[in-house]
Amino acid sequence: MAVAYPVMPPLHPVAGVRIGIASAGIKRPGRRDITLFELVEGSQCAAVFTRNAFCAAPVVLAKASLAQAMPRYLLINTGNANAGTGSAGLNDAQRCCGALAALLDCGAEQVLPFSTGVIGEPLPVDKIIAALPAAHLDLQGDNWAAAAEAIMTTDTVTKGESVQLQLGGRSITLTGIAKGSGMIRPDMGTMLAYVATDAAIEAALLQRLLQQAVDASFNRITVDGDTSTNDACVLIATGQSGLSLAEGSEALPAFADALQALMGRLAQRIVRDGEGATKFIAITVEEGGNEAECAAVAYTIAHSPLVKTALFASDPNWGRILAAVGRAGLDGLDLEAVHIFLDEVCIVYNGGRASSYTEAQGQAVMAKDEIAIRVLLGRGQASTTVWTCDLSYDYVKINAEYRS
Amino acid sequence: MAVAYPVMPPLHPVAGVRIGIASAGIKRPGRRDITLFELVEGSQCAAVFTRNAFCAAPVVLAKASLAQAMPRYLLINTGNANAGTGSAGLNDAQRCCGALAALLDCGAEQVLPFSTGVIGEPLPVDKIIAALPAAHLDLQGDNWAAAAEAIMTTDTVTKGESVQLQLGGRSITLTGIAKGSGMIRPDMGTMLAYVATDAAIEAALLQRLLQQAVDASFNRITVDGDTSTNDACVLIATGQSGLSLAEGSEALPAFADALQALMGRLAQRIVRDGEGATKFIAITVEEGGNEAECAAVAYTIAHSPLVKTALFASDPNWGRILAAVGRAGLDGLDLEAVHIFLDEVCIVYNGGRASSYTEAQGQAVMAKDEIAIRVLLGRGQASTTVWTCDLSYDYVKINAEYRS
Repeated sequence: MAVAYPVMPPLHPVAGVRIGIASAGIKRPGRRDITLFELVEGSQCAAVFTRNAFCAAPVVLAKASLAQAMPRYLLINTGNANAGTGSAGLNDAQRCCGALAALLDCGAEQVLPFSTGVIGEPLPVDKIIAALPAAHLDLQGDNWAAAAEAIMTTDTVTKGESVQLQLGGRSITLTGIAKGSGMIRPDMGTMLAYVATDAAIEAALLQRLLQQAVDASFNRITVDGDTSTNDACVLIATGQSGLSLAEGSEALPAFADALQALMGRLAQRIVRDGEGATKFIAITVEEGGNEAECAAVAYTIAHSPLVKTALFASDPNWGRILAAVGRAGLDGLDLEAVHIFLDEVCIVYNGGRASSYTEAQGQAVMAKDEIAIRVLLGRGQASTTVWTCDLSYDYVKINAEYRS
Repeated sequence: MAVAYPVMPPLHPVAGVRIGIASAGIKRPGRRDITLFELVEGSQCAAVFTRNAFCAAPVVLAKASLAQAMPRYLLINTGNANAGTGSAGLNDAQRCCGALAALLDCGAEQVLPFSTGVIGEPLPVDKIIAALPAAHLDLQGDNWAAAAEAIMTTDTVTKGESVQLQLGGRSITLTGIAKGSGMIRPDMGTMLAYVATDAAIEAALLQRLLQQAVDASFNRITVDGDTSTNDACVLIATGQSGLSLAEGSEALPAFADALQALMGRLAQRIVRDGEGATKFIAITVEEGGNEAECAAVAYTIAHSPLVKTALFASDPNWGRILAAVGRAGLDGLDLEAVHIFLDEVCIVYNGGRASSYTEAQGQAVMAKDEIAIRVLLGRGQASTTVWTCDLSYDYVKINAEYRS
């Protein structure tokens, strides 16, 4: 189920990036489950990965390879996460990258592997290697939408964003795709996201831009509080537009804003397709002492099964929101300074039920499929927003039946 | 729904404690929703309360009253939590206690109030006060089972435990009741629990015994990770048996063990009646550097919606357990030292799928309605156990429909 989904915009090709799709039949025969990105020579690449200690073999290998060389290829498979597979899994990931490097005549460390799907099953390496020539033959610039589809697992819709903007007298393209629907509480990355631009940006700056944008986008969404073993987010700069961005460039702030906005929309697409989601919830916590405590309160609300089921039921049971704020662990929280709003309706004023509040007002907001929860803490200037969804029968159904 | 519920044993009266039940019709006409405990003069009383910052008015008042005097009466209502009600709520709680004190000729500070039910609605004070004489007339020693029923909210079964033991040549009774089914992740207390003994125990020691027992019982269960605003656990010592226990008493360790065992069973009864529960899960984490990190891992598993839905589906999707261990936030966790067992079946060995493991073995364990998950961290001597339940359609149903 997906919530009020904006149509995916046309995904503009990014000069310097070609994409090929193929079918290895990892989980189902005929499923297009292999995606190959080719990056033009000289492209810069930044990435962030899951902080889950049990990170998957491809994450371990991709980090090590990135430390050695700039990648020329990204090799992505769905249907199998190659996680919890120990040293055999690492060997499997290396074999895939090695086979692609031999086929395309580059170093194995110039191929970054990414896997998503079921945890704990051996990666079907031979099937993947057999599909590589077909992926290579399919390489083309206009394959972003096909790639958005090929990287899906329990996703019900494809997720992509694309913008073109005029910067420094040049036309710059920024295009990205993402996947993810369950096991979503990214920590330093997200399920899988790939964003590319044709601007030229040196690696250190690219990494900083990516980190800033991730912190305000993929690191601010949650479906179920479960951080994946395979999260990764990659940002590519091919430089093919002729525009160079460096620290201090006049066009840098506009580019950073556009990047953050694009990644924010991609992240929201993931929440809107959250497993079983029927509602899209934006939780904004304001007037905090720092951003971390705002995030703690927002995530406590976002992860509360009681809040999430009340949202599913369109029940303005605001006491559950209040209880979640109270258990978020903030030292010295002054209850009387706390106000809570559902959209524009004040439900809690000075720590108690607002005298102006009526059940009818609450019900009118809760009946919507997009709801903003706003908490004012009255202890500072910091704020943050976390996006999440409700908890429905279908979440249980999807996760009780996955694998079977 | 309740999991494989042991029958509630006979609840022995505790000399010095009388209990009266009455109906105030708070939520439904005729519902027996008022419970009154009378404690004999000289009884000692210890209590722990929720750490939720938004603690309810009765919790605020009970704490303040306990600091002034030993209580003679406990006044409990269901159907309304008197939480999120601000200063009006505090005034309402005071009015109830004051009315009871006037009726029974004691100080208002000798009446401790407890409320449980929906958050954010004004307490119907007049209805409660009108029911007090009937509760007073009903006072009798043999009313524990009736009280266990009267304090229920979404509970489907009553929860009580009782033991008699020979200590220091005397027969000692220890009896307790509890309620709670959702919004269960106690933090320093639980929903509501009342335990009494006829041993004589001085207040400071009583508080220490209570704290120790709570830490190993009510503070080790979770249904949904939501800490209530109204949690309270009370331990009463009437001294009527003639046995006195003090620091250093020979009989103290045996009493402390019996208390902890009784509270552990009460806590497990709450989980077995967890909202929508179809399975009872004991998660033991061993070989941790300290108990706190063992608890962090155990709670991360216990709160994972993905683990809980897999348990509901009887699906041995052990990768979800592994992913939860990995995101529990342990610094420097050595993945290769981690082993995980489902009952006696080793599913993860040295951080990867155990070579001996077969899906059939996993499925055989997962088909049971009581399952032990055991995680060995390989980094120390500490261990702890957390009890929880699965996440089913019925959890969503119960919490989507509550209030409506």
